[in-house]
Amino acid sequence: MSTGRILLEVNSFQPKRWEELIGAQRKIALERSPEIDPSITYAVLWKQKPNLLAGLPNLKVIFSVGAGVDHIMEDATIPANIPVVRVVADDLTRHMVEYVVWRVLDHHRQGRHYREYQRLRAWHELPQSNASDISVGIMGLGQLGQAAARALMALGFRVNGWSRRAAEMEGVNSFAGEAGLTPFLNATDILVVLLPLTKATTGIIDYQLLRKLRRDNRLGGAVLINGGRGRLQKEADILRALEDETLKEASLDVFQIEPLPKTSPLWSHPAVFITPHAAATSDPMHLVPIMLEQIKAYERGEPLQNLVDRESGY
Amino acid sequence: MSTGRILLEVNSFQPKRWEELIGAQRKIALERSPEIDPSITYAVLWKQKPNLLAGLPNLKVIFSVGAGVDHIMEDATIPANIPVVRVVADDLTRHMVEYVVWRVLDHHRQGRHYREYQRLRAWHELPQSNASDISVGIMGLGQLGQAAARALMALGFRVNGWSRRAAEMEGVNSFAGEAGLTPFLNATDILVVLLPLTKATTGIIDYQLLRKLRRDNRLGGAVLINGGRGRLQKEADILRALEDETLKEASLDVFQIEPLPKTSPLWSHPAVFITPHAAATSDPMHLVPIMLEQIKAYERGEPLQNLVDRESGY
Ligand SMILES: NC(=O)c1ccc[n+]([C@@H]2O[C@H](COP(=O)([O-])OP(=O)(O)OC[C@H]3O[C@@H](n4cnc5c(N)ncnc54)[C@H](OP(=O)(O)O)[C@@H]3O)[C@@H](O)[C@H]2O)c1
Ligand SMILES: NC(=O)c1ccc[n+]([C@@H]2O[C@H](COP(=O)([O-])OP(=O)(O)OC[C@H]3O[C@@H](n4cnc5c(N)ncnc54)[C@H](OP(=O)(O)O)[C@@H]3O)[C@@H](O)[C@H]2O)c1
Repeated sequence: MSTGRILLEVNSFQPKRWEELIGAQRKIALERSPEIDPSITYAVLWKQKPNLLAGLPNLKVIFSVGAGVDHIMEDATIPANIPVVRVVADDLTRHMVEYVVWRVLDHHRQGRHYREYQRLRAWHELPQSNASDISVGIMGLGQLGQAAARALMALGFRVNGWSRRAAEMEGVNSFAGEAGLTPFLNATDILVVLLPLTKATTGIIDYQLLRKLRRDNRLGGAVLINGGRGRLQKEADILRALEDETLKEASLDVFQIEPLPKTSPLWSHPAVFITPHAAATSDPMHLVPIMLEQIKAYERGEPLQNLVDRESGY
Repeated sequence: MSTGRILLEVNSFQPKRWEELIGAQRKIALERSPEIDPSITYAVLWKQKPNLLAGLPNLKVIFSVGAGVDHIMEDATIPANIPVVRVVADDLTRHMVEYVVWRVLDHHRQGRHYREYQRLRAWHELPQSNASDISVGIMGLGQLGQAAARALMALGFRVNGWSRRAAEMEGVNSFAGEAGLTPFLNATDILVVLLPLTKATTGIIDYQLLRKLRRDNRLGGAVLINGGRGRLQKEADILRALEDETLKEASLDVFQIEPLPKTSPLWSHPAVFITPHAAATSDPMHLVPIMLEQIKAYERGEPLQNLVDRESGY
């Protein structure tokens, strides 16, 4: 099998590191010739510019350097017949599990209130619910959602999961599809969003959805945690839900526009905790060997792993 | 066996709840007659006043309503020959595990810095270490320490443990006794204190000890988390250690004087997170059945569980 060059366009995610690490082992191209370019066999992409892949007659596989592939699916210039591989890596999964457990515990253990009491020098113990009184509902029970579910169950939380197709996971109360969405939300105190961004999921976190969460609970309200993608959520709706106590608190790692504009009222909302799309950044050092291993296996004739389904978009 | 009354003195920990819950099943006494009082067979104590137990000729067992028994050990008027039972309960253990995981993750995931960036409306991603780069050292590898160790290992942290006698716990790098203390500290980035307060441990967390923690690490410094007892620590030393960067941050649930005096500089220190001895408050509703079950078993002639060793003081 011809092993041509790897076209690398990794924007705003340590491009130099990818270049170094892949370049040390394979011939790479940082840009392509404007004409038909037969030298490229693989493309490694993050937030690539459109039209990058047209006229690459020998392109075999596209790799996303993230778990999400919305940047590829939304680019209509990407050839439809080329397999797309996404990242599934322990390193990334562990970071997301940390983020989810960290945020769930900070809401459950009332971090916001204790920080405020500290500011006031007030020694004041709050009633504390048990993890077993709280149902965390994970929207998107895939690689990341399942790992988060396991970690939360180990701490004693109840876990609900929602996915497109019914999932079977021991200990998880599983719901599926549109019909399962309302019962899933009605049984959920803390909503953790780990969905991919697709046509079907864009804007799904809106006021009507948040309204269905359980508010009359031991936590004193419903909580939203979004570690998926920003365009899953409608930020105006989240603000409205915080205003009228549909939501008690939120932890958001992702936003409709990133970087989150300075003017967003989310920044200064006392019930919102913001991180800059940093829930689960993985180190290229961990991801490059996995990617190069996949290429080698592919060149030996083995099937590709972690393929994206172009139809469903994730 | 004579089943007399249960003398109940539970101060500043929901006394009415204990009274209700125990009183529903057993004859209780909320105070004792000043004379020799043969009517009392058991005592249930939290922060009792001295001299409470003198002249109780039929006293058989003393129950602490907490996991710690320093309030009993330090009361010289408590008869030395009466067995003391402490609390070991899933409910309490789970809360402590939550506290430890919550605090470890908040330090590891740089919560303090992200909260500050949010205040400044700054979209700024920080380099993030992996849990596997961080060694959490647990001082006191007992009921609580072991459960915390398991939860931290499940998240990928390395765990060191320090106890009086060498402990064997799968996956934990275990150190024991005075000889083991320095190597334990030298290999630790985040120190979690879950020791009982005894003569041997009073004031153990001092400047010299903190100085031995690993500072040149992926976390950018050493962290202290105390969920044990306040008098294990010297607060002036902690402040000094924060000042000269011996310590990077601290989470303290317990203090030399509780409530922590308004004048303490810990309240306003930006690198300190304070909770009001709330790491693992358990609900009397969960503890009373365990205690009454113990009494029944004892009255059937079975041995007492979770006995305190009067010699070592815990
Ligand atoms: N913030 C960050 O730093 C960060 C880092 C990494 C990843 N992410 C985001 O996390 C997402 C999830 O990653 P992953 O590896 O867990 O993905 P995955 O393994 O593909 O799992 C996706 C899950 O979402 C479910 N799903 C997809 N579309 C759905 C729909 N229309 N209705 C109901 N359920 C639907 C899937 O259902 P089925 O099981 O039925 O297929 C699956 O359970 C990524 O797509 C990415 O956007 C964010
Ligand atoms: N903040 C809160 O809300 C809260 C709530 C509950 C409990 N606590 C505190 O947590 C403490 C621990 O509870 P636990 O149930 O885990 O106790 P435990 O099961 O008795 O464990 C105590 C551990 O400390 C070790 N230890 C004791 N003295 C030592 C010494 N001089 N040198 C080295 N190691 C020593 C013991 O070593 P060995 O294994 O060799 O015996 C054991 O590993 C309690 O005593 C209490 O003070 C705090």
